[in-house]
Amino acid sequence: MKQDGYAVMISSSLEDPVLEEAAIEQLLGHRLDGLIIASCSFSPAKFQQLKAQGTPFVLIDRFFPQFRTNFVGVDDHAVGRIATEHLISIGCKRIAHIRGLEFTTGVGRFEGYKAALSQHGIEFDPGLVSPYMTADGLDWQQSYAAMRKLLGGRPPDGVFCYNDPIAIAAIEVALDAGLRIPEDIAFVGCDNLHYGASLKAPLSSIDHHSSLIGVRAAKVLLSLLRVKTPKRVRHVVLEPSLVVRQSTLRRNTVQLHREILSAVP
Amino acid sequence: MKQDGYAVMISSSLEDPVLEEAAIEQLLGHRLDGLIIASCSFSPAKFQQLKAQGTPFVLIDRFFPQFRTNFVGVDDHAVGRIATEHLISIGCKRIAHIRGLEFTTGVGRFEGYKAALSQHGIEFDPGLVSPYMTADGLDWQQSYAAMRKLLGGRPPDGVFCYNDPIAIAAIEVALDAGLRIPEDIAFVGCDNLHYGASLKAPLSSIDHHSSLIGVRAAKVLLSLLRVKTPKRVRHVVLEPSLVVRQSTLRRNTVQLHREILSAVP
Repeated sequence: MKQDGYAVMISSSLEDPVLEEAAIEQLLGHRLDGLIIASCSFSPAKFQQLKAQGTPFVLIDRFFPQFRTNFVGVDDHAVGRIATEHLISIGCKRIAHIRGLEFTTGVGRFEGYKAALSQHGIEFDPGLVSPYMTADGLDWQQSYAAMRKLLGGRPPDGVFCYNDPIAIAAIEVALDAGLRIPEDIAFVGCDNLHYGASLKAPLSSIDHHSSLIGVRAAKVLLSLLRVKTPKRVRHVVLEPSLVVRQSTLRRNTVQLHREILSAVP
Repeated sequence: MKQDGYAVMISSSLEDPVLEEAAIEQLLGHRLDGLIIASCSFSPAKFQQLKAQGTPFVLIDRFFPQFRTNFVGVDDHAVGRIATEHLISIGCKRIAHIRGLEFTTGVGRFEGYKAALSQHGIEFDPGLVSPYMTADGLDWQQSYAAMRKLLGGRPPDGVFCYNDPIAIAAIEVALDAGLRIPEDIAFVGCDNLHYGASLKAPLSSIDHHSSLIGVRAAKVLLSLLRVKTPKRVRHVVLEPSLVVRQSTLRRNTVQLHREILSAVP
């Protein structure tokens, strides 16, 4: 928050008194050893400044191809591909996509979506893609609007949403419009938020292993702190995985699985 | 995170490039103007250190009665009272409480729960209260265990949960046990999380106005930054409000409301 020339920072220590003590001491002592950044903008100037300061840093989630630097994240192209292939596998023909922010995450998931369509001979229809979100799935009004727009024309029968909060909002709009989930329209999100299973339409999701990203980023940063002059840039890319719940569990798919199983001697 | 003598801090700037720039500059420039602390431990030493440094700070959510300092939060006693009175009003007789952390939040909500029971002539039964949570509603296993324990004896017909994530976990356990919500057992949480409406059992909740707490805390901090020697300690307490959804919307209550309405000429 910047106002009247003041810079104020809010920090958290996850209910751990030892961490809290360390965080406050560190803030008061003006010691900073390293940075983990989920950046929404990366300029040559910022990159040079960070390099010049000599403070080690690791980007998470998003990277900037023009700057070779330490990064830990998920394969976002695979996120989009796996989600879309799953919708295709349950029989969806008109698959929409509600896009995320214009970073490697949003672009990668969108490209993965298009790649999956193409691989299965489904023509890409720009009318089935919502414009970029300007907030990271936290703007409910924007998410509702994106889904309403998709339902304005001939409705899709499957939607891959950039993340779970967008999917939760989109599902509300679909239910309000009287659509049945997943029979009329199926949804896949991304994040695999814990409460996804507790939703009205328990949400199928791509798990992008956010905890693991945190663990790996911390490890990379700690190794950078130990070895002052690292030999190479670390670029860690995790593989996402699909978690299937009712929002894509169509009866005909269940029937299909039963038939396959019943055919097993 | 503290390991091998390194202190590492993780910060966020809500997808705003200007904030991000400011945060990184500030971190690199070692400038710190003020602190907003949701503290889980406050010692005389820490309090003195903060005072001595002259860095203004505001506590949010929780305060420590032994230290008179700037605070912004909700009336937690009212949270517990309103939630419990609501459960009483829909006809619950055996009202359980899953407790939060042992701070003013957890203690205040528990005291409010007991006060409401007492005011309505319902005897307090310690067997209907789960022990303290050690994590702030983020430990799902602990939340499941607390609810399972409550169902171990004669089950309650209403549960006031310290927060929404605990309620979401508790509801899963109740549904798994074959209970109908809200007919057999009603639930009230606290937080009024946006996705509460999208849950299997849309969750009644006490809104403790977390956004407003943030806004007010920022305002108090900014005023402290402007006036270097403030005359008095600021203690801002917001009133919580009840948001009713299906998890407490019993048919007999609906029927009751209908009867009341039908009696209106």
